[in-house]
Amino acid sequence: MQGYLTGEVGEAEMSAFLMAVFIRGMNRDETYHLTMAMARSGEMLDLSQIEGIKVDKHSTGGVGDKVTLVFAPLVASAGLVVSKLSGRALGHTGGTVDKLEAIPGFRVSLSREEFISQLKKVGVAVSSQTEELAPADKVIYSLRNRIACVESIPLIVSSIMSKKIAGGADVIVIDVKSGKGAFMSGERARELAEELVAVGEMAGKRVSAEITPMDQPLGYAIGRVLEVKEAINLLKGEGPADLEDVCLSLAGLAFWKAGICETKEEGRRKAKKLLECGKALEKFAQWMEAQGANPRIVDDFSLLPSAECQPLISKKEGILKDIDCKKLGEVSHILDVHPAGGIVLRKKLGDRVEKGEEIAMVYGEKEKLAQALENIESVFFVE
Amino acid sequence: MQGYLTGEVGEAEMSAFLMAVFIRGMNRDETYHLTMAMARSGEMLDLSQIEGIKVDKHSTGGVGDKVTLVFAPLVASAGLVVSKLSGRALGHTGGTVDKLEAIPGFRVSLSREEFISQLKKVGVAVSSQTEELAPADKVIYSLRNRIACVESIPLIVSSIMSKKIAGGADVIVIDVKSGKGAFMSGERARELAEELVAVGEMAGKRVSAEITPMDQPLGYAIGRVLEVKEAINLLKGEGPADLEDVCLSLAGLAFWKAGICETKEEGRRKAKKLLECGKALEKFAQWMEAQGANPRIVDDFSLLPSAECQPLISKKEGILKDIDCKKLGEVSHILDVHPAGGIVLRKKLGDRVEKGEEIAMVYGEKEKLAQALENIESVFFVE
Repeated sequence: MQGYLTGEVGEAEMSAFLMAVFIRGMNRDETYHLTMAMARSGEMLDLSQIEGIKVDKHSTGGVGDKVTLVFAPLVASAGLVVSKLSGRALGHTGGTVDKLEAIPGFRVSLSREEFISQLKKVGVAVSSQTEELAPADKVIYSLRNRIACVESIPLIVSSIMSKKIAGGADVIVIDVKSGKGAFMSGERARELAEELVAVGEMAGKRVSAEITPMDQPLGYAIGRVLEVKEAINLLKGEGPADLEDVCLSLAGLAFWKAGICETKEEGRRKAKKLLECGKALEKFAQWMEAQGANPRIVDDFSLLPSAECQPLISKKEGILKDIDCKKLGEVSHILDVHPAGGIVLRKKLGDRVEKGEEIAMVYGEKEKLAQALENIESVFFVE
Repeated sequence: MQGYLTGEVGEAEMSAFLMAVFIRGMNRDETYHLTMAMARSGEMLDLSQIEGIKVDKHSTGGVGDKVTLVFAPLVASAGLVVSKLSGRALGHTGGTVDKLEAIPGFRVSLSREEFISQLKKVGVAVSSQTEELAPADKVIYSLRNRIACVESIPLIVSSIMSKKIAGGADVIVIDVKSGKGAFMSGERARELAEELVAVGEMAGKRVSAEITPMDQPLGYAIGRVLEVKEAINLLKGEGPADLEDVCLSLAGLAFWKAGICETKEEGRRKAKKLLECGKALEKFAQWMEAQGANPRIVDDFSLLPSAECQPLISKKEGILKDIDCKKLGEVSHILDVHPAGGIVLRKKLGDRVEKGEEIAMVYGEKEKLAQALENIESVFFVE
């Protein structure tokens, strides 16, 4: 890894290695050593000067995944320190940093000093991932992408865990998405979760992973500001049940692994209370303010950007049987040029749809709406 | 292949492809298409203007393999046209071109016109392989070498057959070496032979392959001029039995595939006769003269370079149980700076060796002899 970054090891050799790993796999020990080599390819963040237990969170990615926006203040409201260096959007799923950046005034590029100081003061900070953190991951990922070697468990594990290990947290909670809208499901998702936990623990971290369903978007909103709003609604006790369920589960894991709860079930109950009593929402507002946004957005969505909208009307009646998450992500990407662009579902899988009824509302710049509506029709399968 | 040569396809992509083939293999059809793409990456030699059936020969390589030096004039003495573009030494085995070049006056770099004209006149020509013939093979081989993907049957087949197909002969005879001194043995060697024949036939060639043993050097001589002398001795009816056996088998295959004999056994008997009647030796002399060497070398070895020598004396008695061919090739390489450098075995596998008896004679520059003798001792295992 070091040699590849310096150019001592050629692209051909690294490419051959990655393909061999892609086809043959690696055992846990090999995956661990690759992960550590990647983690050590750059700065290893030292959070030891910050009091308390530091928690980091990762999601393997899915459409409408705004869990971090809820998880971070929720876990921090329990007195833990949530330290997250987050990436940009990858493929058809949005990145947390992109979503936060859509909030007027919110600064995603904190300096190391600002980041640490905010963690000490507010107990939560999310900043865009810097080049110095596991730089090998970036170049390796780009090479894997070029040679079609992305979907390999040991390579995914080393990519995710190298960044998390370099990130310096004590507790790492991982949301492994499983289903048609995720890039893995069933046995493969379970194997990925197991390997992530095992490799993280070999590196001395307290790690837990939850496999959560991703057969359809999480919640109803897809799009930067739309997702921020839905996250705030959840923090106010008015969020969609599936999103709440995942947020509570992951927060529960964090509380359990941090040792402030005996079991993950107890952790989940604690999370539910923090949500209900308004402490999580309060922490969210503090967090917004600390990073430059107006904390009053929690009460006044008119402070957030808004866009024009148009409904998608169903031409038939029946049950919503399938949602093409990948395509939905692509349509959302068309609308994403506007910070408030995106899609809000009116129906989810299993819901009854009448002819002429709204299936979804599409938001964005006027000239993009028609294009999006044209493309979105085939996303929903009603029968 | 075309894209790789022009730089349109990157090294990383090609490297990943080769590793995937190395691990997963290719079916025959895929191997054929890769072979043809490589063959067509440069000039396709057109030998149709030359009358008669054109024969080419290839060996997968072994220590002491001087078969081409006998095969070429032997097959040409039957009226077939032996057209061979030959490579340089590869790894621990010597190349035919290197051996011919050690003969004073012999020109290995014939122009296309000289090559064709000599084939018409003498019926045999061996020239060094030019860059224009299957240029993809050279760059792919160098990449395979860098990423440790040399020993793959589909990649070996495409490498060998691309050059043979571009070489333009009608009949292709392949000597697949099998055993400890070869890079494949047993089932793998058989599979390689089968694939070579099948892919060559898909390209419209008449191809036959023989699997010949390579557990020890072929004949007794290893080294450029030493091997030339041994080949001449065989053409005079005084060669080692194992070398003669391989030469007759391969010539027999050529006669059978060219249609001048009904079976390969009949071909072999015809080859034996051509050897015994002196016609093959006569063709050898004509060949030498055509390419600039003195034809009298066949009767006067003093016209060839000579070197000092020193014997390797056995320190124990017993049976010669094993010869480390790879190491032997490496020692021979040390001595190879002198055209007459090399090793002549006195004993072969199964022979009884007395204490104090010569196992081998080492030839070369004085200062290299000691180094060679020191290294050669562990080559022979007597027990």
